[in-house]
Amino acid sequence: MRWGGWGDPDRTATLPESVTALLGSALGVERPGQPIPDAASAKLPPSRITELPGADSSAGARLAHLRGKSTPDLLKIRAGDVSAVPDAVARPESHEEVVALLAECGQRGIAVVPFGGGTSVVGGLTPETGKPVLALDLARMDQLIAFDSESRTATFGPGARAPQAEKLLNQRGYTLGHFPQSFEYATIGGFAATRSSGQASAGYGRFDELVVALRAATPTGTIETGRAPRSAAGPDLRQLLLGSEGAFGVITSVTVAIRPVPEVKHYEGWTFEDFAAGTAAMRSLAQDGPQATVLRLSDEFETAIGLSRPGKLGHGAGGCQLILGFEGTAAEVEAKRAAAGDRLRALGGEPLGTEPGEAWAHGRFSAPYLRDALLDAGALVETLETATFWSTIPDLYEAVREAIVDTLVEGGTPPMVLCHVSHTYPAGASLYFTVVCALGENPIEQWDAAKKAASEAIASAGGTITHHHGVGRDHLPWYAAEIGPVGVAALRAVKQAVDPDGILNPGVLIP
Amino acid sequence: MRWGGWGDPDRTATLPESVTALLGSALGVERPGQPIPDAASAKLPPSRITELPGADSSAGARLAHLRGKSTPDLLKIRAGDVSAVPDAVARPESHEEVVALLAECGQRGIAVVPFGGGTSVVGGLTPETGKPVLALDLARMDQLIAFDSESRTATFGPGARAPQAEKLLNQRGYTLGHFPQSFEYATIGGFAATRSSGQASAGYGRFDELVVALRAATPTGTIETGRAPRSAAGPDLRQLLLGSEGAFGVITSVTVAIRPVPEVKHYEGWTFEDFAAGTAAMRSLAQDGPQATVLRLSDEFETAIGLSRPGKLGHGAGGCQLILGFEGTAAEVEAKRAAAGDRLRALGGEPLGTEPGEAWAHGRFSAPYLRDALLDAGALVETLETATFWSTIPDLYEAVREAIVDTLVEGGTPPMVLCHVSHTYPAGASLYFTVVCALGENPIEQWDAAKKAASEAIASAGGTITHHHGVGRDHLPWYAAEIGPVGVAALRAVKQAVDPDGILNPGVLIP
Repeated sequence: MRWGGWGDPDRTATLPESVTALLGSALGVERPGQPIPDAASAKLPPSRITELPGADSSAGARLAHLRGKSTPDLLKIRAGDVSAVPDAVARPESHEEVVALLAECGQRGIAVVPFGGGTSVVGGLTPETGKPVLALDLARMDQLIAFDSESRTATFGPGARAPQAEKLLNQRGYTLGHFPQSFEYATIGGFAATRSSGQASAGYGRFDELVVALRAATPTGTIETGRAPRSAAGPDLRQLLLGSEGAFGVITSVTVAIRPVPEVKHYEGWTFEDFAAGTAAMRSLAQDGPQATVLRLSDEFETAIGLSRPGKLGHGAGGCQLILGFEGTAAEVEAKRAAAGDRLRALGGEPLGTEPGEAWAHGRFSAPYLRDALLDAGALVETLETATFWSTIPDLYEAVREAIVDTLVEGGTPPMVLCHVSHTYPAGASLYFTVVCALGENPIEQWDAAKKAASEAIASAGGTITHHHGVGRDHLPWYAAEIGPVGVAALRAVKQAVDPDGILNPGVLIP
Repeated sequence: MRWGGWGDPDRTATLPESVTALLGSALGVERPGQPIPDAASAKLPPSRITELPGADSSAGARLAHLRGKSTPDLLKIRAGDVSAVPDAVARPESHEEVVALLAECGQRGIAVVPFGGGTSVVGGLTPETGKPVLALDLARMDQLIAFDSESRTATFGPGARAPQAEKLLNQRGYTLGHFPQSFEYATIGGFAATRSSGQASAGYGRFDELVVALRAATPTGTIETGRAPRSAAGPDLRQLLLGSEGAFGVITSVTVAIRPVPEVKHYEGWTFEDFAAGTAAMRSLAQDGPQATVLRLSDEFETAIGLSRPGKLGHGAGGCQLILGFEGTAAEVEAKRAAAGDRLRALGGEPLGTEPGEAWAHGRFSAPYLRDALLDAGALVETLETATFWSTIPDLYEAVREAIVDTLVEGGTPPMVLCHVSHTYPAGASLYFTVVCALGENPIEQWDAAKKAASEAIASAGGTITHHHGVGRDHLPWYAAEIGPVGVAALRAVKQAVDPDGILNPGVLIP
């Protein structure tokens, strides 16, 4: 992972000239951003963890586990702020080793932050604590532990990266079908701990729907859940660990539902006159089928800027572009395409053929690379997301847009606010906003104000504070309001029961 | 509800002569069972609840809330044991009234048992406590509170009975599609509190999958969950209330996903040579589609006795009978029928036409009526169920059968053990066992021994202790083992946080 940025250091993105011009003309970007400082020049606070067997407190290890990948994370690193660096890094190889480490850290008062791909965008890797901090890097627990072709399940270690897990399954004729934007780096354990949702989740299901069993190590012992795909044996404790963000335990194995590798993957583009017509068409497919594998709709602004296909940034269009994908046998895909095509036409859609679909698929993991280029160029760019029921979507959309625009205009940096519907369900959908504006004097405060306004707007309109990024530390106040005092009390009670010394990712998730 | 038995008192079942003969010849049933005593003759312990506003401590009200509907429940009533009768019954009309009642009961040390349809078969209505017990009958909170056709959701009061909820939705062109065997009496709140699964759950989803939002009253306040169909905002607290069986709070409203009333409902029968061939065929449909709305497979024993179609008991057949149902538009149903037919034929299935399907649909809610007739005739009959992954199904099936047969043979009452696969998922399925034998000297102990042996077999084979009946008090020891000490500690912590005085259904759910 690139230090201070995203992805493969050899694959940095370059902005098209049209985009650079637009930054100046439309957003008033006048000067480049702070460059990423050399890691070697970083002045680290001394490590407070010594003599913990197997712990690595070298500067390289510590810096490689500094923060996640939100824009504020990257801005702080660009500003030379490495104060959130962990004191040391441990790389356990087994569940038993994690159990032992947690026991020792409990006794010694060391905070433990489980670390998968390091891709959190909500402050999930920056605990709030006076304790020394150990990053628990799960990279060595990356095996395919069990494979059951009859039940179509596979059990992975938490550190298995998504591409590696996908490859191991593909070799056996199967797929997990989980492709979030963080795919190239994110891990199976991280997906589970954050309730990840992927670009093909309309077809394969969200990650929390794919998990059939889990094992976790807590400071008070091991918990194993999932003896059957579904059960009526009390509250579903899998659902208490899914989304627990390292605050209740360290997930040490994950059993997921898998499917045969699809014979055919077909992605195509459609265009609708406006966002309302496009969302109505999506709702029709989500409620009455045929069920798409990929279904995304960019609003007028995102379509105009061309971000509906990140690889084609700057080549925008009018209306609202929709990406529709089907995966499966050739016959299934053909039948669904035909039925979906009839429906979308009847609802005002015009087909754009496969080019936009393929461009989207080609660029599907590239947006985070663009962010680094935009930050270099002097633009602030960040995303946020929410979900709600269909009948609330129009108000939620307007309220969030308005809150962001108003706040940033008031601060003197008028933004572009782009949005797409990223995930659909029969009862509702998620909205994913991308915000771009000129970097201000104090970009951390600048974004903080916009994010706060957006979060207030989400809460007031009745949306959930996050549909797939997670809570971390960034969403805590709105999360607490969302689940209310009884929900907070229940979470705190579980936390106290499984982590009495409060060593697990302190300050994250639990309000 | 019939006193001491099941259902509409005017609709009691009569056993076919062939069955009565079989009870004698095959099971050694020699004398009739104890009849249900006259309710008026019951000697109730004096009520310990006085001067609670609105509480009804009349004998009639108390007896109408005595126990659930497990066979041991009915046997105790037949034996004249009314010791578990609640002290009084309250019938609140609003969330606020429930909140106030819980506060008052907390202060006065009164245990509160939420009561929906009274159909628990796992001891969920017989708390273990020294406190006076108030049955909180939710029948008056039975309204359709909200209806959102755009999001396809409906919000019901917890006391809405399933037929009433279904009727209210049908009038608007929609269906909930939830048809458990308890359909005629069970309530929306009860479905949520017990993670109910219905006969059409293959198509519509389990009840826990249909719930998008919940409101509950706890002694410490109100909790509301569900701002979106799905969220990444921490652990899914809906899933903590679903299956909480009244131990964490009183569910006061439930928002469910609904669908248009299907144009066509088509049910048909198939036969397979044996259980292995039948389950392999079910697995194929569950994993690769077409997704059925109803999919059930009776084993050789259940098929032979004719219980695959409760209305046709005694008219058995060879092989294993499968019921396959599709609901939807005429075109969808036709396409799925054709595709499923090809698949089942290729996997060794032989079509039996629509007669078995229609016979099953006609008798789908009648089995509990048969039980009363069997108990009258001197036969013990009870059911139990589990679920696991496909690869574990054969061992689990054998182990449970053997455990039940061995125990009852040893006790001198050789049983018939019938089984069907009642619910299927891509990763696994549930097994539903029906046990019939002659009533022994002490039928409570007789069944208890068989149930213990079956539960041990389920646990050893790796199944879950319940797929859709719930935990109640009957499953507590195996449930505790299933979730382990960390799971138990987490549940107890939540219980303590939301119900510090321990008034909510004490002794139920929490090990």
